Amino acid sequence: MLKVYGDYRSGNCYKVKLMLHLLGREYEWVPVDILKGETQTPEFLAKNPNGKIPVLELDDGTCLWESNAILNFLAEGSEFLPGEPRLRTQVLQWQFFEQYSHEPYIAVARFIQLYQGRPAEREEEFKVCQVRGYKALKVMEQQLNRTPYLVGEHYSIADIALYAYTHVAHEGGFDLSGFPAINAWLARVASQPRHVGMLD
Amino acid sequence: MLKVYGDYRSGNCYKVKLMLHLLGREYEWVPVDILKGETQTPEFLAKNPNGKIPVLELDDGTCLWESNAILNFLAEGSEFLPGEPRLRTQVLQWQFFEQYSHEPYIAVARFIQLYQGRPAEREEEFKVCQVRGYKALKVMEQQLNRTPYLVGEHYSIADIALYAYTHVAHEGGFDLSGFPAINAWLARVASQPRHVGMLD
Repeated sequence: MLKVYGDYRSGNCYKVKLMLHLLGREYEWVPVDILKGETQTPEFLAKNPNGKIPVLELDDGTCLWESNAILNFLAEGSEFLPGEPRLRTQVLQWQFFEQYSHEPYIAVARFIQLYQGRPAEREEEFKVCQVRGYKALKVMEQQLNRTPYLVGEHYSIADIALYAYTHVAHEGGFDLSGFPAINAWLARVASQPRHVGMLD
Repeated sequence: MLKVYGDYRSGNCYKVKLMLHLLGREYEWVPVDILKGETQTPEFLAKNPNGKIPVLELDDGTCLWESNAILNFLAEGSEFLPGEPRLRTQVLQWQFFEQYSHEPYIAVARFIQLYQGRPAEREEEFKVCQVRGYKALKVMEQQLNRTPYLVGEHYSIADIALYAYTHVAHEGGFDLSGFPAINAWLARVASQPRHVGMLD
């Protein structure tokens, strides 16, 4: 059976869980606590030399890492990953956008506020996260004003990738009330058959 | 003809140029100067709402952005992107690693040192880039001690993605002398048929 090493509160791990539920795949969840250093043990580093969760372990022991790479692996051949080359590229485009322009600000702001209680020594960084996080949200809002999902008419792993931290952005201090297209899209994603919440 | 909007000195843009040369594809290069704000004009934002280079414009005007998404688009069906699902996932894994754990430190250190002359107000950030950049290099070194390329026996777009900023890491203050496997790999990549340098 597929084994997922992860933390339920992590958006990157939630992407993998949501994908598995949407596909109706069985899996075993192995809890890993980053705050206790469990991603830095020799055993864990043998699974992912970069020391990060999530990791997907296949039946033969092969370990795949990087949440968005795992999404592509699981979604291949399903309705959640288009076959047409330009659409596939746009899915990747939004996933790389997520990892470079969205997650480092929205997820990090959430970590600072939710996990660390917004300590004074990270206040400067928190403010930078706000500015850049809102910039990413504006780029999403613009696209979602044009199309119901990030890549055209269909729910894809681009949406899963960006839903993960956007739907909990308020936990990082972001106010989404000025983003009607994002709010409509969040509701659209959450209403999909077999959808599962982060803490369900 | 394919049109690339980019800056020759940018590693992210160089990835696209190198790929096009390896594939023997013709293209037109449209220089864009980020320091002059040319990625923030209404015309450019219509091509990439995230305001970043490179952008690949296709014959019909479709614009694709995010360097690694563009690499996947161009490499599809070629020797540079394996068809086998796990290998494909590993290619993506290294590309997401590049954008999250490598580029934000190695490329940013290079920008601070090479473009900005290492100003005092960015010294703290420069030091953080050094620590995290070396961490990324160690992860690469470990893999390249096991396999000649990042994904097994064959040169792929995972290598192109990571070559781009690794081969100029010294311009960001990184000393690669302690990384023999990376050095051997850099030479292996540079010796490929149709290879082209960043400033060629």
